[in-house]
Amino acid sequence: MASAGVSEALLLEQSWAPVCLGGLQLLAKSCFKDTAYRLLLSDMQFVWEEEVNTAAIQERAQELNRRLRAPVSAFFTHLCKVACPRLTGCGEDEDSADSAEFSSLQCSQDRLDIRLKSELAGVPFYWEFRCTPASVAVVCSHFVRPLLAVSMVLQRQVGELGTLLARKDTEIQDYKESGAELSRARLKTEVFDEQSYRETFITQVLPQVCAAQDGLGFDADLQELYTAVTAQSSSRKRKRSDSHDPGE
Amino acid sequence: MASAGVSEALLLEQSWAPVCLGGLQLLAKSCFKDTAYRLLLSDMQFVWEEEVNTAAIQERAQELNRRLRAPVSAFFTHLCKVACPRLTGCGEDEDSADSAEFSSLQCSQDRLDIRLKSELAGVPFYWEFRCTPASVAVVCSHFVRPLLAVSMVLQRQVGELGTLLARKDTEIQDYKESGAELSRARLKTEVFDEQSYRETFITQVLPQVCAAQDGLGFDADLQELYTAVTAQSSSRKRKRSDSHDPGE
Repeated sequence: MASAGVSEALLLEQSWAPVCLGGLQLLAKSCFKDTAYRLLLSDMQFVWEEEVNTAAIQERAQELNRRLRAPVSAFFTHLCKVACPRLTGCGEDEDSADSAEFSSLQCSQDRLDIRLKSELAGVPFYWEFRCTPASVAVVCSHFVRPLLAVSMVLQRQVGELGTLLARKDTEIQDYKESGAELSRARLKTEVFDEQSYRETFITQVLPQVCAAQDGLGFDADLQELYTAVTAQSSSRKRKRSDSHDPGE
Repeated sequence: MASAGVSEALLLEQSWAPVCLGGLQLLAKSCFKDTAYRLLLSDMQFVWEEEVNTAAIQERAQELNRRLRAPVSAFFTHLCKVACPRLTGCGEDEDSADSAEFSSLQCSQDRLDIRLKSELAGVPFYWEFRCTPASVAVVCSHFVRPLLAVSMVLQRQVGELGTLLARKDTEIQDYKESGAELSRARLKTEVFDEQSYRETFITQVLPQVCAAQDGLGFDADLQELYTAVTAQSSSRKRKRSDSHDPGE
C-alpha cells in the first residue's frame, strides 16, 4: 500500500495525466526520487500501483539486463530520464530523442506489466513496471477525495462567474436606461439567466462533454486544479498535525 | 460485487448524498426495489456495499425479529419507508414522524454494520445493514468516472461563462465609447481577466472551499450534475450495445 512520509505526500500532490503506454490509454501519476519510485496507473475501470525501493530496482535491473555493471544510481537516473516524460504525459511523441519503447506485457484486473526498452551507454536497457491492484484506500485518496474537491471548487467558480455576469447585466441595463445605444447591434448580449443557462447546459452541452470524456480527459487546467486541491489538503494535514504535536 | 442489469444501472444513476447514520458522517447511495436492495456507503477513506435479495431479507428479518410473522413484502415496504429518506439525505431530522433510530455497530476497513430500530404495527422492528468493502471496480464506476465527468462538465461551464463575460465587457466598452455614463458609480464592474481571475481564485478562494469540504459536501447542485453525467453514460452504453447487437 502507501509508503510512509514524503513519498506519499509527494505522490498525492502530483496530478494524474493521460498517457499512452504500449498501446494502453491510461491515467498515470508517479514519483521518482532517491533511487526509488512509486507509480499509479488507471484505465478508469481499475487502478494499479507499484512501489519499488533501491534494492528491488538493483535486483530487477540485473534480472532483466544480465550484463549490466553500472551502479544503481546510474541506471536509475537513466530510467527517470526515459520513463518520466512519458509517465507525466509530456513525451508522447514516439520519435522522441530517447527512443524509449513501451510495450504492454499483461493488463488484467490483477496485474499490469509494462516493459520499457531503451538504450543506456550504447546497449539496450530493459525495465519492467510490475503493478498490482491498488487498494480502495489509495483510490479514495488519489482519485475520489481530490476529484470531489475539484468539483466543489469548480462549482464555486461557476457560482462566482454567474454573480459577475449578473453585475455586468446591471451595468449594461444602466447604460441602456440612460439612453445609450450600441454602435453595432451584434455586440448586444442576452441577459444571463442562471437557471435557464443551467438547464440548457445540462440538456445540450453536457452530453457532448461526456461523450468526449470517453477518452481520459485530464487536461492541463484540470491537472492544475487537482494539484492545487491536493496541495491544500496536504497543507491542512500538516497544520493539523503541527497543532496536535506542538513540540515537533 | 455489482449485480447485473437494472439494479446496477439504477444505482449508478443515483447520486451520492451526505448522510449521518448512527453518528457516522457518510456519503450514501442506495436502490430499494422488488424486495431487494443495494447500498453503497463511504466515509471517503473506504467504500462499503451491501446487496441483499428477497430470501436474505426474509432470513435476516426473522433472525433480528423472532416474533415477526409479516410477509416479506410488508416489512420491506416498511424498511424502505424508514430507511430511504435517511439514506438519501432527506430525513436527517431525528424527530421525524418515523422515529427510526440508526446506530453504528461496527465501522472498520473490512466491515460497516449499521443497526436500524423502528416500529412496525406497534412493535419494535430491527434491521441491520451489513456492508463489506466495495471493489476498486465499483469505486471507479460510482465515484471516479462520474466525478471526473462532473469536473470536466463544470470546467466547460467555467469556460463558457468566461466567454460570456468577455462579450459583456465588449458590449460595455461600446457603450462607454459612445460616451454613455453610469448613473451610479458603484454599478461599474472591472473588465474580466480570465487568467488573473483564475490565479486569485486558486490562491484565495480555493483554500476556503477545500477547508469547508472536510465535511462531505455533495450538495444538491453537485448531485444534479452527478445524476446528469451518469444518466448520459448509461444512455451512451445502451446506444453502443444497441448498435453492437442490432437484433436485440
